[in-house]
Amino acid sequence: MSLERFSSSLERAFEEQVFGEHPAELYEPIHYILSLGGKRIRPLLTLLSANLFTKSWETAIEPAMSVEVFHNFTLMHDDIMDQAPLRRGKPTVHHKWDTNRAILSGDVMLVEAYELLSKLEASLLKKAILRFNKVAAEVCEGQQLDMLFAEREEVSKEEYLEMIRLKTSVLVGYSMELGGIVAGASPDACELLYEVGENLGLGFQMTDDILDVYADPKLFGKQVGGDILENKKTWLLLRAMEKSGEDRVRTLLSIEDPDQKILAVRTLFDELNIKAEATSIAEAYFDKAMLGLQALVCPFEVEKEALNTLFLQIRSRQK
Amino acid sequence: MSLERFSSSLERAFEEQVFGEHPAELYEPIHYILSLGGKRIRPLLTLLSANLFTKSWETAIEPAMSVEVFHNFTLMHDDIMDQAPLRRGKPTVHHKWDTNRAILSGDVMLVEAYELLSKLEASLLKKAILRFNKVAAEVCEGQQLDMLFAEREEVSKEEYLEMIRLKTSVLVGYSMELGGIVAGASPDACELLYEVGENLGLGFQMTDDILDVYADPKLFGKQVGGDILENKKTWLLLRAMEKSGEDRVRTLLSIEDPDQKILAVRTLFDELNIKAEATSIAEAYFDKAMLGLQALVCPFEVEKEALNTLFLQIRSRQK
Repeated sequence: MSLERFSSSLERAFEEQVFGEHPAELYEPIHYILSLGGKRIRPLLTLLSANLFTKSWETAIEPAMSVEVFHNFTLMHDDIMDQAPLRRGKPTVHHKWDTNRAILSGDVMLVEAYELLSKLEASLLKKAILRFNKVAAEVCEGQQLDMLFAEREEVSKEEYLEMIRLKTSVLVGYSMELGGIVAGASPDACELLYEVGENLGLGFQMTDDILDVYADPKLFGKQVGGDILENKKTWLLLRAMEKSGEDRVRTLLSIEDPDQKILAVRTLFDELNIKAEATSIAEAYFDKAMLGLQALVCPFEVEKEALNTLFLQIRSRQK
Repeated sequence: MSLERFSSSLERAFEEQVFGEHPAELYEPIHYILSLGGKRIRPLLTLLSANLFTKSWETAIEPAMSVEVFHNFTLMHDDIMDQAPLRRGKPTVHHKWDTNRAILSGDVMLVEAYELLSKLEASLLKKAILRFNKVAAEVCEGQQLDMLFAEREEVSKEEYLEMIRLKTSVLVGYSMELGGIVAGASPDACELLYEVGENLGLGFQMTDDILDVYADPKLFGKQVGGDILENKKTWLLLRAMEKSGEDRVRTLLSIEDPDQKILAVRTLFDELNIKAEATSIAEAYFDKAMLGLQALVCPFEVEKEALNTLFLQIRSRQK
């Protein structure tokens, strides 16, 4: 079955979903942030993973939505913490309304994520929810590490990779695992789905970091060079420090003019071959994800096609 | 069995509970806010309610802790929204650390509340969690209404009571209901436990509002008259407006000197007999709660004694 079929079912489900009525002030921001679009990669992964094991993949729609609602809850709260004015080109919730609204709507959004997951039948719910709890806590841990690293002098590449694993990849892993859980896949299959998704998530985030420096500004949704302006200790910056010495990098980071700063750091990256190194790390994660998927034993082998298509889209994205 | 036995089991469980290890910055505020004390009324209600239906009330300890962790999560986030510097005489989390820490530790605390609840066996978990989701969303709705009412000109007494029902009482109701669910009580018994707790919670909050105006400053943990200084539209203030006309009350609320303002409003309340009216409403809620408990059919009738003792303590509290 084609990717579009799953996507359109998901969009319809989101359009029809009512999260709560009263007071409208509490629930409005939930509909707002979900309407900003986004690629819906996580819930698609849930549906596509379930579809490897069952013909009734529609039973995975509400759990899939749960993962997307959770992801958007983290965006709503992260945007407060990062003082971000824009999300996908639109005002963030705390800018459009205020911080209190973004805190409280985020809180109820986390509850709504659990509510969607709780539609699962009792025999599946316990496993799904125990894994969700663990992953949700890890995502918070990743965000805390991200904030701590911004203030710390020294961060290792390994610590950075562990941070993005927690902040981004465990949820991508869970999105796939949840599809397996809902479809009654074996514990081994569920674990492999998780690993596939975790590697996909790591490749996704490394690609994100590369695009932040090298994307075509005409295609990219946000400012190219944003991470450089923030002195964000991404794998690329940490690797450049390792290869050229910290002092040289810090000198470039102290350039005041934004365009000159971005250009100087990018020129250093080019000189040190950082993009190619980062790309090969991203590729290694994607390869691991795709090999894992290939190795997965499931009743509907042919349905792996849609997942492979999505993986390739994620792998080759330019924005 | 005596109240103290349940309390000490609960305190030991909280002392032993590890919420997460790394990064310490994320989990420290959870232990901090839980260590500030508080009466632990909600988890006690869960244990005492379970104890009406089963001799293995210890199985209710983790679910009971879940309710207390959820309650403290709401305090952590409410304190940010209310810009409160102190909680039980100690710095609030966002003052001791910062707002981002309080947002994120609160988030993971909500996840930890679900995790404690998820220890329940699969056959009980679904019911417990569906009810928890509903109550958790209602608590957020109550907080949103509370913030909206602060900015609104007109609030009716009925709206105020509905707000405190959502913000405070539904969780007290759920605390008792959860004890029934864990102990395998019938749906009817669980519903009655919820109603008893909701009425107890309404009586509790009305008493809180009365104490805020009339408590002995030597006993009361916070500033007596705090609600008056904030122009908080409590039942007492709304009733005073009804009896004396809004203009008269608004004139008193515009007094600048804090002590004079508190004295003036309290004098008006005395003149209008507001304390006695509010007390009789609180008493009616307590009576309903105690009659409901009396009517509850359960195998261990004698164990109602501890609940009655706790109800009377709550009812007659002076601080």
